[in-house]
Amino acid sequence: MNTNVVLPPEVPDCPAILSDRFKTLRYEAETAEVVILNRRLYPFETVYERYRTVEEVAIAIEEMIVQGGPPLAYAAGLGMVLAAREAETADATSETKLRQAAERLLDTRPTADDLHHIIPKALVTGLKAQPGQRAEAILSYVNGEIQRGNDVSRLCGWHASHLLQDGDRILTHCIAGAALCWMLWYALQDGKRVQVIASETRPYFQGARLTAQSCVEMGIDCTLITDGMSAHLMSLGRIDKFICAADRITMDGHITNKVGTLQHAIAAHHFGLPFYVLGYDGPDPDSATAADIVIEERDPREVFFARGKEGRVQTAVSGINALYPAFDITPPHLIEAIITDKGIFPPTLIHTYHATQQP
Amino acid sequence: MNTNVVLPPEVPDCPAILSDRFKTLRYEAETAEVVILNRRLYPFETVYERYRTVEEVAIAIEEMIVQGGPPLAYAAGLGMVLAAREAETADATSETKLRQAAERLLDTRPTADDLHHIIPKALVTGLKAQPGQRAEAILSYVNGEIQRGNDVSRLCGWHASHLLQDGDRILTHCIAGAALCWMLWYALQDGKRVQVIASETRPYFQGARLTAQSCVEMGIDCTLITDGMSAHLMSLGRIDKFICAADRITMDGHITNKVGTLQHAIAAHHFGLPFYVLGYDGPDPDSATAADIVIEERDPREVFFARGKEGRVQTAVSGINALYPAFDITPPHLIEAIITDKGIFPPTLIHTYHATQQP
Repeated sequence: MNTNVVLPPEVPDCPAILSDRFKTLRYEAETAEVVILNRRLYPFETVYERYRTVEEVAIAIEEMIVQGGPPLAYAAGLGMVLAAREAETADATSETKLRQAAERLLDTRPTADDLHHIIPKALVTGLKAQPGQRAEAILSYVNGEIQRGNDVSRLCGWHASHLLQDGDRILTHCIAGAALCWMLWYALQDGKRVQVIASETRPYFQGARLTAQSCVEMGIDCTLITDGMSAHLMSLGRIDKFICAADRITMDGHITNKVGTLQHAIAAHHFGLPFYVLGYDGPDPDSATAADIVIEERDPREVFFARGKEGRVQTAVSGINALYPAFDITPPHLIEAIITDKGIFPPTLIHTYHATQQP
Repeated sequence: MNTNVVLPPEVPDCPAILSDRFKTLRYEAETAEVVILNRRLYPFETVYERYRTVEEVAIAIEEMIVQGGPPLAYAAGLGMVLAAREAETADATSETKLRQAAERLLDTRPTADDLHHIIPKALVTGLKAQPGQRAEAILSYVNGEIQRGNDVSRLCGWHASHLLQDGDRILTHCIAGAALCWMLWYALQDGKRVQVIASETRPYFQGARLTAQSCVEMGIDCTLITDGMSAHLMSLGRIDKFICAADRITMDGHITNKVGTLQHAIAAHHFGLPFYVLGYDGPDPDSATAADIVIEERDPREVFFARGKEGRVQTAVSGINALYPAFDITPPHLIEAIITDKGIFPPTLIHTYHATQQP
């Protein structure tokens, strides 16, 4: 954990809601509820869901009410606060309940590493605290993580902004996470005009909804394409760079991100365009290589439908099968650089991140 | 034009409606109407639209009520029958009206070459015929073309079926045209079990609707994926071949097909998988190379919506732009072979097609 984050230059606050995790999730002490922006509805509807139990939070994560590696991990962390409150007694069951809650939350989604770092630490924090003060201890830890995540995102985005040039047309895939928002925002503050080309990201349309909305909030030109159009635009010289986040980075430089990323990365490589990965706080020390990443298989029936502003429509015939791997893995030779809060790393040297001091 | 088509072995009729163009469009003499299966609704609804004027047919083509290179060209040809009926007088205006109709129909869609071959020939056929017999002459020509197209598709599919192996998992994109249906059907008759992996093909979901439905009709295992998943499945060794049709083939071996094809082709190349193109009756003699292909740009707002069984939903936020190039171009070095009614050609030798006798 990088505890001495040096913040980048002060600029006006980034107006994209997704640039600040506190704007999308929090623990509300008065009601003892976890409050989460519903990312399946946003921005068509701005609904903050309220959860009172660990199980409710776990289901919200599974159903992708909250999505994205760090945000869903923070939501789970706040779920541990609820667990600690539920188990706030001095007897042995308290510890058992906290352990069970941690297991339940860890079980929600296998691929992103943040969840698997934050929950064990939240559990230890809770167990170490005095009975009666566990919820408070966990909340303090998780809020610290959210603040650290915000700072890391901003630093990562600031470093990445230096890779952008005036006039760049930047392909991105899935959600514009906090680092992507900050990257664009810093570039804008530097007087660079950039255009985001957002692939819509089927089946949930995170690109069409969340990334596009973040661009609207920041006043950045956004052009939507379907997930199959990137290579064509590259062939016409209409894309300059491919930049997206990662749900997990291995020590040898593989990255996993929303399914579709690999296809864009292969196309970028084919056309000689750089693929930059926003790597936040670096690789997962527990993931040596791609074999250590579990790719979540979601309910394949989701591929039969499209959910939009007005509800859901069936877009496929009946009597067929489907597949919905949520993520794919891109190998290091397709990646130009991984940008972190500590600066820019060639993918095969990303293992040096943890020994690197922030510049 | 290949006039001496030798038909492949007799097998039970292919049950896929899309394998026989007469099942999806025809001229109905009693009502003097062109009748076209609505491919934007099918198979959720089986609606045969009826058109009485050239303008109505032109709009149906523009709105993709009929889609696919050959089918839309046949529909336009039948539109010329309507034009000849409208202009069935002996005076000079008759010829002018026929020419105007041809121009209007040619103007509907720029990319596929079939339209641009059939309409000029239908016009000449009409002009050569005696006044009073023009509609009949054009109808006879167009019906002959549809029959020839059916035969070509069957032959092309038969040749392609020899490239399939038992157990093959075949990625395809956009509509399973007649040749793809016949390829799968012949493979099935040969006792080969194959699986189709259909990419859904945003924004119109031709893969999820038309290809999937053809597989259901033929009893072939179909697995639906989103347009961004093919590379991931290839990386896992879960795809053996990529096979699709082409809207136009150039003399030097470039192919144009529904946007998304290039991305799958690049991914297949990256993973060492063959990309076979179903080339029907060969390259367009008027298209020397890729620069001769005009890529149609459709209304970008289509990318903001998804149309399904229950209607249409808005899937993107407002305040952004979009792009909707209908096709992309894949160069010959990404193509393993082009399969035609005259057999199998390496892409850079496809120019020899026209001098080749059917084996």
